[in-house]
Amino acid sequence: MTYEAQRSALADVVAIPVTPFAEDGSVDHGVHRALLRRQLDAGVRTLTPNGNTGEFYALTPQERRAVVETTVEEAAGRAAVLVGIGHDVPTAVAAARHAEAVGAAMVMVHQPVHPYVSDAGWVDYHRAVAQAVPALGVVPYVRDAALPGARLAELADACPNVIGVKYAVPDAARFAGFARDAGLGRFVWIAGLAEPYAPAYFSAGATGFTSGLVNVAPRLSLRMIEALRLGDYPAAMDVWERIRRFEELRAADGSAHNVTVVKEALAALGLCRRDVRAPSGPLPEAQRAEVARIVAGWAV
Amino acid sequence: MTYEAQRSALADVVAIPVTPFAEDGSVDHGVHRALLRRQLDAGVRTLTPNGNTGEFYALTPQERRAVVETTVEEAAGRAAVLVGIGHDVPTAVAAARHAEAVGAAMVMVHQPVHPYVSDAGWVDYHRAVAQAVPALGVVPYVRDAALPGARLAELADACPNVIGVKYAVPDAARFAGFARDAGLGRFVWIAGLAEPYAPAYFSAGATGFTSGLVNVAPRLSLRMIEALRLGDYPAAMDVWERIRRFEELRAADGSAHNVTVVKEALAALGLCRRDVRAPSGPLPEAQRAEVARIVAGWAV
Repeated sequence: MTYEAQRSALADVVAIPVTPFAEDGSVDHGVHRALLRRQLDAGVRTLTPNGNTGEFYALTPQERRAVVETTVEEAAGRAAVLVGIGHDVPTAVAAARHAEAVGAAMVMVHQPVHPYVSDAGWVDYHRAVAQAVPALGVVPYVRDAALPGARLAELADACPNVIGVKYAVPDAARFAGFARDAGLGRFVWIAGLAEPYAPAYFSAGATGFTSGLVNVAPRLSLRMIEALRLGDYPAAMDVWERIRRFEELRAADGSAHNVTVVKEALAALGLCRRDVRAPSGPLPEAQRAEVARIVAGWAV
Repeated sequence: MTYEAQRSALADVVAIPVTPFAEDGSVDHGVHRALLRRQLDAGVRTLTPNGNTGEFYALTPQERRAVVETTVEEAAGRAAVLVGIGHDVPTAVAAARHAEAVGAAMVMVHQPVHPYVSDAGWVDYHRAVAQAVPALGVVPYVRDAALPGARLAELADACPNVIGVKYAVPDAARFAGFARDAGLGRFVWIAGLAEPYAPAYFSAGATGFTSGLVNVAPRLSLRMIEALRLGDYPAAMDVWERIRRFEELRAADGSAHNVTVVKEALAALGLCRRDVRAPSGPLPEAQRAEVARIVAGWAV
């Protein structure tokens, strides 16, 4: 297998949809579907249910499966689905097999939450998952700046379905080095810190970027990738400047309100409730007004 | 309720037992029981199943419940059991209720793994868990140096069963400030970075410390706390010096081999297999020999 379709889907805006909640706190699947359709209609072609913007770690196992099923149904061939999976190995393997059974094409393996990760153990963890679903594309999500690129190459030697990497270290030079150590042309490189780092990562070889902004303003995210594909960095930076303050609010205080700000923007547009689950929390009133002003200025 | 027995159990060596695995990779409950009995016989009086040294994040939900049940049975009134719980709120609440149902006295709430934690959301998360089990003592595990002490006070105002804190930031001055901001006398303060930081934390008001070393050399851990209770810091530092290299091997490379080194020591003593689960990994051969030499020198 060459995984051509999956590779192509990763070299794009990799959307991380939010998981909207109803007033009773449950997942609101009707609103979820509407938000997905809005992105698909705008031209989004890669959807990642159970990413961090989807509040993966605040969902129960049953909710995680339901979110995947809803996403695959709405994608309906219009978009590739990259399912976030994680936790202990048997749980991750079961989630990957569920993703395959319902028709998803790829899985993204969250950075292990285990506090004691050795390089060799990192390889073992991902190999156990990737070998369980050889027909799926597998995308490790790397947030650890200390992981050597050679370990990724070792993983892919054993698992040819490891085709892309979501790299999310806020250091473009570190990314450039890691990608070259692992094999630049061997993987699709996804800027895992979204639009704020996308131009810098693209300058070093990335061809896709993840996005939470795309929930709110899909055309801004798509405009940025179109500019980056053309090598038009000034145009990409025009988008960067338009979204700067929004992304700064998301990144403040150790990203405390990363998802909260996105949902606040969607609430300002009347598209979903603003509620996030603990341990995320509500946005201070002053920031709510600022988010609403930013979004009004985008005229999405 | 005043939770006197629970408070007393926290002001002690808070053991974090390993979870031994059989050759087929499953949890070896026979060896687990033998290791627990060895600690109990040495005088350990507080056991924490499903702590990080127990490879919490590498266990399945079923295995986590089984480890709790085995521990409560072996403790058999000789020791208090503090059950590690975590993940999404419904999963954490279910684990807390299971702990209560099988006879444990307390739960330790792992630092949320969710990447976007707000101060208010941190309170909400712990409140949801603590209010579900009002008869149990609740111990938040704090690894985030940015959390203000006032938030812990706010949590305890709502939940009087939040009686102790496992604080695990490698900065004794930060600990001293946090404890005073939260209320020094209101909580039992547990040095959450074990013996290496215990003397410094005790100097600022801690009265208990967690331990992984206790799996291997329970008398060394107990000797340290006896010295600290007497205010005999030179005697505590004698123990510190004896275990220094062992703890340095555990802390190296971002704690990659934190549990691996403990299990290697137990393997050198013939007490359990050295196997850890991914994403932890095997210890390099040279370090194996060094661990064996250290343990032989302790004559445990």
